[in-house]
Amino acid sequence: MAELEIGIIGATGFSGVELYRLLCSHPEKPAVTLFSSSRDGQDITEEYPHLKGISTNSTLKKLSLEHIKRMDVVFSCAPSGVSRELLPPLLEAGIRVIDLAGDYRLKDSALYEKWYKKPAPPERWLHEAVYGLSEYNRESIKQAQLIANPGCYPTAVQLALLPLLKNNLIDPLSLITDAKSGLSGAGASLSKSSHYANANESLSIYKMNAHQHIPEMEQSFAQIGKSEVIMTFSTHLVPMTRGILATMYADLLPGVTTEIIYETLQQHYENEHFIRVHQENTPLSTNQVSGSNYCDISYSLDERTGRLTVYSVIDNLLKGAAGQALHNMNIMMGFNETSGLPLIPQFP
Amino acid sequence: MAELEIGIIGATGFSGVELYRLLCSHPEKPAVTLFSSSRDGQDITEEYPHLKGISTNSTLKKLSLEHIKRMDVVFSCAPSGVSRELLPPLLEAGIRVIDLAGDYRLKDSALYEKWYKKPAPPERWLHEAVYGLSEYNRESIKQAQLIANPGCYPTAVQLALLPLLKNNLIDPLSLITDAKSGLSGAGASLSKSSHYANANESLSIYKMNAHQHIPEMEQSFAQIGKSEVIMTFSTHLVPMTRGILATMYADLLPGVTTEIIYETLQQHYENEHFIRVHQENTPLSTNQVSGSNYCDISYSLDERTGRLTVYSVIDNLLKGAAGQALHNMNIMMGFNETSGLPLIPQFP
Amino acid sequence: MAELEIGIIGATGFSGVELYRLLCSHPEKPAVTLFSSSRDGQDITEEYPHLKGISTNSTLKKLSLEHIKRMDVVFSCAPSGVSRELLPPLLEAGIRVIDLAGDYRLKDSALYEKWYKKPAPPERWLHEAVYGLSEYNRESIKQAQLIANPGCYPTAVQLALLPLLKNNLIDPLSLITDAKSGLSGAGASLSKSSHYANANESLSIYKMNAHQHIPEMEQSFAQIGKSEVIMTFSTHLVPMTRGILATMYADLLPGVTTEIIYETLQQHYENEHFIRVHQENTPLSTNQVSGSNYCDISYSLDERTGRLTVYSVIDNLLKGAAGQALHNMNIMMGFNETSGLPLIPQFP
Amino acid sequence: MAELEIGIIGATGFSGVELYRLLCSHPEKPAVTLFSSSRDGQDITEEYPHLKGISTNSTLKKLSLEHIKRMDVVFSCAPSGVSRELLPPLLEAGIRVIDLAGDYRLKDSALYEKWYKKPAPPERWLHEAVYGLSEYNRESIKQAQLIANPGCYPTAVQLALLPLLKNNLIDPLSLITDAKSGLSGAGASLSKSSHYANANESLSIYKMNAHQHIPEMEQSFAQIGKSEVIMTFSTHLVPMTRGILATMYADLLPGVTTEIIYETLQQHYENEHFIRVHQENTPLSTNQVSGSNYCDISYSLDERTGRLTVYSVIDNLLKGAAGQALHNMNIMMGFNETSGLPLIPQFP
Repeated sequence: MAELEIGIIGATGFSGVELYRLLCSHPEKPAVTLFSSSRDGQDITEEYPHLKGISTNSTLKKLSLEHIKRMDVVFSCAPSGVSRELLPPLLEAGIRVIDLAGDYRLKDSALYEKWYKKPAPPERWLHEAVYGLSEYNRESIKQAQLIANPGCYPTAVQLALLPLLKNNLIDPLSLITDAKSGLSGAGASLSKSSHYANANESLSIYKMNAHQHIPEMEQSFAQIGKSEVIMTFSTHLVPMTRGILATMYADLLPGVTTEIIYETLQQHYENEHFIRVHQENTPLSTNQVSGSNYCDISYSLDERTGRLTVYSVIDNLLKGAAGQALHNMNIMMGFNETSGLPLIPQFP
Repeated sequence: MAELEIGIIGATGFSGVELYRLLCSHPEKPAVTLFSSSRDGQDITEEYPHLKGISTNSTLKKLSLEHIKRMDVVFSCAPSGVSRELLPPLLEAGIRVIDLAGDYRLKDSALYEKWYKKPAPPERWLHEAVYGLSEYNRESIKQAQLIANPGCYPTAVQLALLPLLKNNLIDPLSLITDAKSGLSGAGASLSKSSHYANANESLSIYKMNAHQHIPEMEQSFAQIGKSEVIMTFSTHLVPMTRGILATMYADLLPGVTTEIIYETLQQHYENEHFIRVHQENTPLSTNQVSGSNYCDISYSLDERTGRLTVYSVIDNLLKGAAGQALHNMNIMMGFNETSGLPLIPQFP
Repeated sequence: MAELEIGIIGATGFSGVELYRLLCSHPEKPAVTLFSSSRDGQDITEEYPHLKGISTNSTLKKLSLEHIKRMDVVFSCAPSGVSRELLPPLLEAGIRVIDLAGDYRLKDSALYEKWYKKPAPPERWLHEAVYGLSEYNRESIKQAQLIANPGCYPTAVQLALLPLLKNNLIDPLSLITDAKSGLSGAGASLSKSSHYANANESLSIYKMNAHQHIPEMEQSFAQIGKSEVIMTFSTHLVPMTRGILATMYADLLPGVTTEIIYETLQQHYENEHFIRVHQENTPLSTNQVSGSNYCDISYSLDERTGRLTVYSVIDNLLKGAAGQALHNMNIMMGFNETSGLPLIPQFP
Repeated sequence: MAELEIGIIGATGFSGVELYRLLCSHPEKPAVTLFSSSRDGQDITEEYPHLKGISTNSTLKKLSLEHIKRMDVVFSCAPSGVSRELLPPLLEAGIRVIDLAGDYRLKDSALYEKWYKKPAPPERWLHEAVYGLSEYNRESIKQAQLIANPGCYPTAVQLALLPLLKNNLIDPLSLITDAKSGLSGAGASLSKSSHYANANESLSIYKMNAHQHIPEMEQSFAQIGKSEVIMTFSTHLVPMTRGILATMYADLLPGVTTEIIYETLQQHYENEHFIRVHQENTPLSTNQVSGSNYCDISYSLDERTGRLTVYSVIDNLLKGAAGQALHNMNIMMGFNETSGLPLIPQFP
């Protein structure tokens, strides 16, 4: 049997490196090729010394259609705005692509241009792209040629809210999400906000009501959750490397009890490997999922106001990026869904 | 002129140590006596070596009424539930006390017992106590014998919301606060959640809808803000030592514009030393107030929903505890309000 | 074939939890029983919520000889001073034990009592114990009934120095080691020094010239390195959870060149899975081995003084504790040496 | 009386900002002008929002000789290699300058060029410059036109070693220093090593035997310590913002006892405001000096080898940079030496 060939475009970002780590331990033992237009010829261990000795194939290759055509699956970790131009030639050549950027997530190109402030990708591929929220789109993911892997925040938010929206338990117009992320979510590029002395010992609020993940979530609430949602959304930068905690607030609909909430979440996810539903009022910490592909969910009912607080935690580089992307590849290729995904969080 | 004599009860907690630091640099050069029932006879530098050589008066004294009567002002940093019994004898002896615990903040003893799950302090002193939100209660603070210094979260929340509530700009029943604090807010005592390996590299949510600061804020919204509020309130532990960031969500009332919000905040605080109002959509970080007595405030209007996001940052040990307490002492004693308070944040 | 049965004593410490994580992913799929005398009946997920849903066998069991006799291998993660009394009955019952504490590392009971300030374990088992420095004692480890797993600091130090001592490249009497460790090395128990507010944003020096790991290293230098060493040794606590960096200084012996140093290290470890030798003057960081069983080694020659600086990094909970213990189990049981050991560091 | 006019060149670096903070609270109430060639016209609060509202004079000015001539003292926080060209015109115009870069520290221009790998500054000013180690060069500092403020590492190292070298207690040829610094020492400019995800949760060793601070310390050991020293020196980056801990190793000279060490250090510094000598074997932490101008010193005798371990901690931005510079200004101008210097560390 021919060996499985996998390519990673934009391999020198954090998601790319994390994918490489996962793929190197994948039981299907794929041959992995690392592509990087800007650094071809370099060895990835120059920038990432932790990878020294891991593989004999650690030289970064220039992206060429000829070369990449040999791949069975390609993960694109190029930034939003780049995969728009980069991917269509690959897709036209018939390559199956899992894109970790935001470019192919929104079906409505006007919405993309409004929130991303960049020209949208070609309509054809916007249309073809399957939104890779693994637990909700398995059947389409199996058949997909192009998967738009969900954003980190949207993963944490949707996994907690979709069961409640689908079952009409909360008022879709009351939704407010207060999301918090570790620094790795901002990527490997240098910026003032990722300078250690700025980020360390400081919590920041940023992109209030303006984050490009807002339309992605609202689209999904409509398509998967069958609910028209306009959500208030704030994001915060937390002095830690990995982890997202999303705290969501919504009005309960009449007649909904805390037991109904619990049963709904529980039943919705009881056969899912990567979702752990906790009982009401369970405090959650990002370190209880760190290094794993888990999303942990709990909630609290404020009896005085009838408002529900739902909250979830993920590792942004795993469930929020590379882990979910690999999960999607497993689904696409018919592998065991948990193959190559670390099941147990690393603590401490 | 007789020297100013100041006592600190519970001097070995973080607020106590911070107060001591501030008082040692106070231009009135007070004589400071450190009281600690459990460690009398010890020198505070055994536990806090950073204080070595600061003062010749660093021995912890047993709390005796005789001794403490000599003090002009006493700060009590004993924990909630302790000052309830500890303070009445001092107060009856005529001593002026600034209490940093929660015991005397709530006027309604039933409310105290419900949220603190402890017996309430004597009604007389609940009634006498002045809530020490410096910017709002100056006149009463001047005359007060007992000041109930506000909680750390309530300080950040009230300073941002009170101008909006007082001016009827936001719907009081729509209020949701998502608050985040560094670890020093949990105090110096040992607990699993303050163990480095648990707290580091992890963000946690805790006490959802059950934090004892909820009734304190609602009481203040009613008394100072003239608004009946029932607020949903969540708290989070952030892997950093100092800092609180509070993110608040509320529906704007009809006709209120972003300009009105800005002008209201700006005018409300234009003569205040310790409040800095920023323009709409300014990202804020806790490190921009760290080491100072500032509260920085900004806001963002979500035009799609008509909801307002207001957010504020403080140093929880200064503006949220020792700094505000000293501010209150300055007001009480007729000193310059900024005396002994570090005006400039320490960054990086 | 009967299933492999493995017990972990003291399962609620950091090494115990890390071993459990590794064993749950071990390809031999062992049945793991968690023992804890103080918390029997509890579920380990109460204290360690990251383990929720990992296994159906997560209840902590009381330590009974009857029960533990069924185990093929037992890891003891009880603290130093406890395994001294705990292990002999198990050993007499014929159980194979890998002890992660310091009790059985020193052959000389007087030395143990001097440095540990506790009564030494029975001579018989001190004598029987095999020092589990995997790369150096493979043959004895295969046959051993009792393995004394090396300390965290000694692992980092010995792996870097033994090749140089064995080959007479450095002056054994000139050795000075300046070692630095993350907080997890101090364990899960609560103490002032592991309180977040004390440990965070602070580097400390502790146990100068008095660390109990000193005789362990010197014994090994004599036995394995054939060198009588008296080493000056300092330890530092670094504000991070995982990682050890050891910086070692020694005078080069006459005629030794930097090329000889490199070739010696390189050849010594070229067939070792878990040791990566870097070229001279390569900067090393603990994060390049974090989450893996690697020890990375480099060095720098100070031409002005003829002194050699050798330095190594490990993950203290893996190569410095649970990882090395599992490596030893793999050797003992004839498994592939890398089985169940994460090969790729987790970065970022 | 004319107001004191002070200029800060390179005001947007960390030392510049720290100096500005100190000067704004200085009792002499100087008028401070901030110079920045690259950002003139900008307000410093754009980059450093913590400074909002502190001063009406926060606009960055272009560096012009005309303007700067009005200053009584100028602090230069331009990087090494820049002040070489920048300062001579100012000096020739008669301005008193305190330079925080390395350019004027070495008397021997060949040594400068060897270690800094840049052309040396003019001999005249190398010769004129006074090395600003405040405790040792007071008399020259008073008269100096140009002060070369010591490097951060050299400050911590020299304060601990000079008394021992001057009194012939340790063997100068046996000296090894293992130094560790927080990230702020690397400055505000963006680099891979200061990216949060690289620096956080990781300890690194860098510039082994090649740090440009080596000749600075050796020059001082010769001039002030009357000892010809060739020192082995390693530096480490610690995941914290502020703080240096230097661990030094030396052979005791014959007849020297631990009591002699203690008395020497104690007597040497008993009249110094900013040096705290601790008893033998006292563990030290960087947080016990953080936010202050203190240098804390302790030591440990290894009786088995006759080696002395001396260690010291400073805040690298205060005693290691801006604090010492201000101390020097106070000496120069005849002010109280502690004026404007925070005496009490900020903890936690």
